[in-house]
Amino acid sequence: MKDIAYYNGRLSPIEDMMVPMNDRACYFGDGVYDATGVLNHVPLALDEHIDRLYDSARQVEIRVSMEKQELRRILMNMVSLVDDPAQILYMQITRGVGMRNHLYRYAGEKASVWAFAAPHAFTDVYDSYRVITREDTRFFHCQIKTINLLPSVMAAQAAEEQGCAECIFHRQGRVTECAHSNVHILKAGTLITAPLDNLILPGITRKHILAHCRILGIPVEERPYTLQELMGADEVFFSSSSAFTCRVREVDGIPVGMKDGATFGRIRDAYQEEVRREAGPDALRT
Amino acid sequence: MKDIAYYNGRLSPIEDMMVPMNDRACYFGDGVYDATGVLNHVPLALDEHIDRLYDSARQVEIRVSMEKQELRRILMNMVSLVDDPAQILYMQITRGVGMRNHLYRYAGEKASVWAFAAPHAFTDVYDSYRVITREDTRFFHCQIKTINLLPSVMAAQAAEEQGCAECIFHRQGRVTECAHSNVHILKAGTLITAPLDNLILPGITRKHILAHCRILGIPVEERPYTLQELMGADEVFFSSSSAFTCRVREVDGIPVGMKDGATFGRIRDAYQEEVRREAGPDALRT
Repeated sequence: MKDIAYYNGRLSPIEDMMVPMNDRACYFGDGVYDATGVLNHVPLALDEHIDRLYDSARQVEIRVSMEKQELRRILMNMVSLVDDPAQILYMQITRGVGMRNHLYRYAGEKASVWAFAAPHAFTDVYDSYRVITREDTRFFHCQIKTINLLPSVMAAQAAEEQGCAECIFHRQGRVTECAHSNVHILKAGTLITAPLDNLILPGITRKHILAHCRILGIPVEERPYTLQELMGADEVFFSSSSAFTCRVREVDGIPVGMKDGATFGRIRDAYQEEVRREAGPDALRT
Repeated sequence: MKDIAYYNGRLSPIEDMMVPMNDRACYFGDGVYDATGVLNHVPLALDEHIDRLYDSARQVEIRVSMEKQELRRILMNMVSLVDDPAQILYMQITRGVGMRNHLYRYAGEKASVWAFAAPHAFTDVYDSYRVITREDTRFFHCQIKTINLLPSVMAAQAAEEQGCAECIFHRQGRVTECAHSNVHILKAGTLITAPLDNLILPGITRKHILAHCRILGIPVEERPYTLQELMGADEVFFSSSSAFTCRVREVDGIPVGMKDGATFGRIRDAYQEEVRREAGPDALRT
């Protein structure tokens, strides 16, 4: 198949999948999601993504009756049915289906389970990218991967309209994360990244990058850092499960970073090597 | 009919209405909504709600191809088809339908138009209510009526779990609004309410209440006020298009207000009288 969607037990091509208007996704964004890249039909770090999905659900008080192993089986079947070996695998849990009312008891008996797998063009990790910045006006629950994503949608759009690949958010100068990735800097050989709090998503690629740094002997500081530090950094890069590690060469039209390609390259290559280990040596045609 | 839903040209009972999984409501909460009470099959202040809906859409950069008069015609037809004369009328516009991607150009050609009309039990405006308070952790776009409502959903649920009717939000002590209504206080005969900024919804009932105050000679202060002022107020009440004016007798278990029933009563009665003028003298059976 070209692509495939799942909703509460049904499978179909994505464009044909219909869901009840009364699913609480539709009125409230009352749900959580997760997503990961798929190479050679292998979803990367799948168990970690499923764990985070269930953890997000727990944080918004959604009880999931489906076992993780059952969801895993459904997802693995889906990626096997899609022809293209390079895909994005998306999964979502919403509070359920019922007449519109804020209160949970209107949500019906069971949380809804959604998923899709579709071909995905991965970003070139050997290129460099332009980004914009924007005041972070999102809510204070950014550690939860909810589908309340309108500010991120508008920020990603603003980036594209300026020919850029991402938007870096900051709260009055303190860098948090991007519209759909985490962001890190290198300074004097040290990786600096925002700490895990309610202002950023605990990125799985972020976590793996920090683990690689420790193995590579690259010091890591998890601490708040500012836009000013970012502008003066040796390297700036963002990371996500579908874009891996993306080097930044320009912020708001001003050249940044690109001064420590050696250290950035070691991190990028360690991550690429991890992907090859997981998905097979031919997973990345580079 | 018992109730009725509309989605992009289709009509059906609400529970039967299916929408594409790829509508951007489902992945991003990428849309806006509005709602109003209906009495005697008359949607209250309908044109103001339609205007605000289109204004919300404009603020999130959604272009609506349907004319307001066409939407109005659809909505009026819907409320006429529902048997119960007392209803809630809900309308929603989302960015459109397309493969999941933050960027607007994936949203397809046209914004989606959603609506439903369903029987509604109006709150008793002659009773008084208990509420809770909670730190306002929502985003900084609360002037837009978006469907990114998860924090409001969780706050409304927390209120109910404590036997309360609403949750008053505050930003570090500054009162903003409630989970699904605006909130006002009376002190020494003056109505004090939060000013219109990005922290609160420009409530239509709020606007009408302020107009009534001016006619009644009740002074109005639109300014930031604190939880402390609220706890010491003569009266506290919340307002919305589906709950009208609701007097508060207890906040977080502590008795509040209930000291200037005369002034509150004049405001409440002026609003009820307006409803009767619009929907007919028999609209409110009280």
